Amino acid sequence: MEFTEKKCRAIYERERTNIEKKLKSLLINKNPKSLYNPCSYILESKGKRLRAFLVLLSAKAVGARYSSVHNASLAVEILHNFTLVHDDIMDNANLRRGLPTVHIKYDLSTAILSGDNLIAIAYQNLLKDTKEKHKDVLSIFTQGIIEVCEGQSLDKEFETKSKVTIEEYLQMISKKTAALAEVCCSIGAILGGGSKTEISLLKNYGKNLGIAFQLQDDLLDVFGDEKEFGKIVGGDLREGKKTYLFLKALELSNGKDRAMLNSVIKNNGVKKSEVASYKKLYEKLKVIEITAEQVEIYTKKALNSAAKIKDEEAKALLIWLANSLTKRNK
Amino acid sequence: MEFTEKKCRAIYERERTNIEKKLKSLLINKNPKSLYNPCSYILESKGKRLRAFLVLLSAKAVGARYSSVHNASLAVEILHNFTLVHDDIMDNANLRRGLPTVHIKYDLSTAILSGDNLIAIAYQNLLKDTKEKHKDVLSIFTQGIIEVCEGQSLDKEFETKSKVTIEEYLQMISKKTAALAEVCCSIGAILGGGSKTEISLLKNYGKNLGIAFQLQDDLLDVFGDEKEFGKIVGGDLREGKKTYLFLKALELSNGKDRAMLNSVIKNNGVKKSEVASYKKLYEKLKVIEITAEQVEIYTKKALNSAAKIKDEEAKALLIWLANSLTKRNK
Repeated sequence: MEFTEKKCRAIYERERTNIEKKLKSLLINKNPKSLYNPCSYILESKGKRLRAFLVLLSAKAVGARYSSVHNASLAVEILHNFTLVHDDIMDNANLRRGLPTVHIKYDLSTAILSGDNLIAIAYQNLLKDTKEKHKDVLSIFTQGIIEVCEGQSLDKEFETKSKVTIEEYLQMISKKTAALAEVCCSIGAILGGGSKTEISLLKNYGKNLGIAFQLQDDLLDVFGDEKEFGKIVGGDLREGKKTYLFLKALELSNGKDRAMLNSVIKNNGVKKSEVASYKKLYEKLKVIEITAEQVEIYTKKALNSAAKIKDEEAKALLIWLANSLTKRNK
Repeated sequence: MEFTEKKCRAIYERERTNIEKKLKSLLINKNPKSLYNPCSYILESKGKRLRAFLVLLSAKAVGARYSSVHNASLAVEILHNFTLVHDDIMDNANLRRGLPTVHIKYDLSTAILSGDNLIAIAYQNLLKDTKEKHKDVLSIFTQGIIEVCEGQSLDKEFETKSKVTIEEYLQMISKKTAALAEVCCSIGAILGGGSKTEISLLKNYGKNLGIAFQLQDDLLDVFGDEKEFGKIVGGDLREGKKTYLFLKALELSNGKDRAMLNSVIKNNGVKKSEVASYKKLYEKLKVIEITAEQVEIYTKKALNSAAKIKDEEAKALLIWLANSLTKRNK
């Protein structure tokens, strides 16, 4: 069978639909409703389900069936949704995937509590696919949560820190975004019975894909299509977020340009009307090309790992996924 | 050796000191500090460490050494501290163990995030004492977190619900307080290599002790010594909390008394100056005796289980603990 782009997308959509269905039925009949309605609300708001898909692909990559890690794939997706609920509180975000965030639709207490509950539900699902020989899967998953918390903590630190280096930024996104992608690939490969080499290959794929994904996200904030991306374009600039583009621009600028960038830090962001002038500055400093190049470098690393996978279907899908994420506009 | 009250207290204090020391050294050198300082702050604020002690005693009860479950005992204590951090946000509490709560000393985001991180750190410690044959320990621990979240959710529901039955109240505290005590005893007994009968005995001990503990807490709120108890006496009344005493009083009252109690619900609490008149009403309706009797019933159930434990030291300590919790004034 040839794995054309169309075929790859069809498999992804099939698995995504399957994940959506399983997430929908997961908490039916659970009580109290004051806890489970908000949990279902976030789990059922449509997402890309990339993390779950990574678990499935990694198991397939080492010769297992998708179905052997379905519960584990739900676990990482549930864990990811916990981070969304709590991050949205911390970021004062009102909308997520076009819907009111949990603390807005319900209230703060409900959002905290349903996030907490989702962590436990994630473990509960992971344990369903974890045989006794797989104790390390639980350690990796647990370490993943710690890294995500550390990453989010660094991200919050950066908000008020005047000097952040590119290296610190990369460390932050490695923890906040890439760690969980790495965890997905590791546990998929371990549960699927992969060899050490295979596990390491997939782990590497996940990590690099995660970094590329986040850098691409930074790019999309400035150059994405507002409707397609689902977020306000220039939102990072308006909030004064120290993204890769911003930090690179700061590094490469001097004189008036540098002062203009420093004023973003000083004022904790820019006005809507100022976004365009910063876009122009980014263009002048070539930070768009530089960031795009970095996305390409990390994507290539992921592709190199994927190329060594034996299973034809998983290999094709891992390659398709990395390429389509780089080219995405949302 | 005879296990006098003095001897029992000495063993408890020795183990408590040991737990405090381990909690203190647990997160040293961890970064980022913005995440780990608040985690250490809550872990190092002195507590009774009852949950950790229950794990130790349950392992000893089935013939294992205390040291074989030290990490698991830290795990339940860390988990308990996570609930404190998040509950304090939900309850708008400014003080905990005489110190500012985490969201007051730091901020909301930090409190949410450090609570989340503590869940993962709890698992990390539990995994250290969990051999491959102990997979059920992780399921029990996970189920415990879910029950605690469900219990807290019911507790929050009750705040705005006008009709709460005694049965609903008991279900709520079974989840919010007793479930974790039960988990402590179960995992201590399982990790210690206990038989099914032993595990079931200890589980029963933990559950009943937990319920007795919470009912005693409800009593202490009205009749405790403010300085000893560390909380404002009558605080539950002032906040309009639907405690066992309150619900029992409502059940047994009619006419003017009932109207007086209903006004607590209507007004979401009472004024400081009104607390004394409600105390009198409680005395008149004999809800103090009734609650104290319930504390005794649940304590007796716990004691009956403890009496069947073979290990003399653990048995003596489990009995001593149940008796001293009932007689506590803080």
